[in-house]
Amino acid sequence: MKKTRLCELLGIQYPIVQAPMAGGPTTVDLVVAASDAGALGSFGAAYMSPQQIREACAATRARTDRPFSVNLFAPVPQPPAYDATRTLARLRIYHEELGIAAPFAPVPSDQATQFNAQVDAILECRVPIFSFTFAIPPASTLSRFKAIGAIVIGTATTVDEAVALQDSGVDAICAQGSEAGGHRGTFAVPFERAMIGTMALIPQVVDAVKVPVIASGGIMDGRGIAAALALGAEGVQLGTAFLATTQSGAPSAHKDALSAAKEDATSVTRAFSGRHARGIRNRVIDEFESDPESIAPYPLQNALTRAMRNAAAASGRAEYLSLWAGQALRLARRIDAGELVRQLVRETDQCISALDALR
Amino acid sequence: MKKTRLCELLGIQYPIVQAPMAGGPTTVDLVVAASDAGALGSFGAAYMSPQQIREACAATRARTDRPFSVNLFAPVPQPPAYDATRTLARLRIYHEELGIAAPFAPVPSDQATQFNAQVDAILECRVPIFSFTFAIPPASTLSRFKAIGAIVIGTATTVDEAVALQDSGVDAICAQGSEAGGHRGTFAVPFERAMIGTMALIPQVVDAVKVPVIASGGIMDGRGIAAALALGAEGVQLGTAFLATTQSGAPSAHKDALSAAKEDATSVTRAFSGRHARGIRNRVIDEFESDPESIAPYPLQNALTRAMRNAAAASGRAEYLSLWAGQALRLARRIDAGELVRQLVRETDQCISALDALR
Repeated sequence: MKKTRLCELLGIQYPIVQAPMAGGPTTVDLVVAASDAGALGSFGAAYMSPQQIREACAATRARTDRPFSVNLFAPVPQPPAYDATRTLARLRIYHEELGIAAPFAPVPSDQATQFNAQVDAILECRVPIFSFTFAIPPASTLSRFKAIGAIVIGTATTVDEAVALQDSGVDAICAQGSEAGGHRGTFAVPFERAMIGTMALIPQVVDAVKVPVIASGGIMDGRGIAAALALGAEGVQLGTAFLATTQSGAPSAHKDALSAAKEDATSVTRAFSGRHARGIRNRVIDEFESDPESIAPYPLQNALTRAMRNAAAASGRAEYLSLWAGQALRLARRIDAGELVRQLVRETDQCISALDALR
Repeated sequence: MKKTRLCELLGIQYPIVQAPMAGGPTTVDLVVAASDAGALGSFGAAYMSPQQIREACAATRARTDRPFSVNLFAPVPQPPAYDATRTLARLRIYHEELGIAAPFAPVPSDQATQFNAQVDAILECRVPIFSFTFAIPPASTLSRFKAIGAIVIGTATTVDEAVALQDSGVDAICAQGSEAGGHRGTFAVPFERAMIGTMALIPQVVDAVKVPVIASGGIMDGRGIAAALALGAEGVQLGTAFLATTQSGAPSAHKDALSAAKEDATSVTRAFSGRHARGIRNRVIDEFESDPESIAPYPLQNALTRAMRNAAAASGRAEYLSLWAGQALRLARRIDAGELVRQLVRETDQCISALDALR
């Protein structure tokens, strides 16, 4: 597998990005394993404190001199005041079942303040690659990364979003197809309009921008990587594939759910964070979605459900967990992350070779 | 572009299927042009009478000795009695605006009787390839096609559906990703669960069945064809790409809408037929979807909206038309259908060649 323009830009060997998955999966072990194997290891740092970011970056630096990236959720407009009575009533049941203290409405945190403190930490660590999703951060923020020579990657789910990102000065664009697990990056249209499948999204985005496009959504093996490159992407981002690996910090119950589920087991829900994200349907999704008004807006819902999710992870109870997963989850492998990268590279070459025989 | 196993099975030169699009687009001109260029021309015959099927097949036979296929909607369970008062109230407004007679509730037709008469016509014409969607027809029907040596292709939107089709004895499976325009073929789960993107669906289906898989959904050019082949498909089916061609019988207003729309312009709706189908959002979709209970079940809604759609096509009024389209519609070309096939073949070879340079 030869280097693409993205590889040169990021200083990596293979055009494979281990997706930044916020909330636990992206451990130092995972990022180091992915980067050491020649891919781009990435921290999903949205829920990490500045201190946690500093520690993770320092630990990574101590173990590899390969590039890695840190990803944040860009601030979105603060939602109007929300009465969380119904949310809390539902959560109370789950908390009782899990044997933890009753839920309470958290003091709302200011997204911009939190984001800026996270950005300060990332800049301080001189992380070589910064990526973001949910919005386009202020130009002043992007300039700070440019000033230290960092590469900036934004997330698009439509062609217009990709063009807006390019106009904002990003160096590469992650184009997220509807198959992708976890949070939708949509920021310019209602989320439903931006559920564009990877097969359709990538060539249309590639035609519209000049910067390298990283394809994400439903890519799990060498076949998917070769397909994404055929569509014009210069790199791929894999989340679910790395979520299942040994080094991923996802709870065992989450990995077990991945292994057991079919491709039709996921849906897109606001149940866990208040923002649309794809995960394996479970009781919490079904019950919150049966009464959508009981779901608080992002980021409040995320804060409200955190104690439940943490307790569920500790006790291995999948019905209360956010089981983020993409639609190709049947292809997940529970193996070492470095070995996954090696297999992906080998498979991609084999797939391209087989394809060439059809020319 | 070399032949795949599907090419040998179907007796065609290139593994490209011009999708059977019911309701007018698949004219004799289109089918002949696609088949003559080395692809598989296909009639979407679901709404054709047995006599229309006989005439179309005879006209095609008179103009080409290449294989072509005929596709039907397999009968689905008849819906419970439905009071169409609200549907008719809404349609009355549209009929008045279009200057046509008031709508009326049609006498329900028996799907199985109609289907069997269509099957008789197809068998009588000894059409070499029969394809179907919406369900698996009775074994006795499939046996009749087998008995005359016809090749049978079924449509799947999940892995389980693909396995069920293989078990029923089909020779190939069209795997329809969520990007696809027109009707969803889903038959084994609620439609929402089967909105699997092509990038995720194809490799999972390929891993589960032995018969050749035809990828559909979001494929519009050589990049998409190469990508689908990389994913393990042995053929591709393109609808929207052929819908835009000169020979397509789609109304000009439909082709104009395709040319003008962005990739986020479509949604999946029951507004026109009562069954879920992807098309460009317009007034009829928005207004029916704002009151979902005013949408009659399939096939009643289809019969109810027919007069409106016919009048709209005649007068070029896109707001009343079913503007079926897939999610990669920015890539549509308004060119000759034979020339489209030639461009697709050339592009696919170029794409594979460029990809091989990355190995």
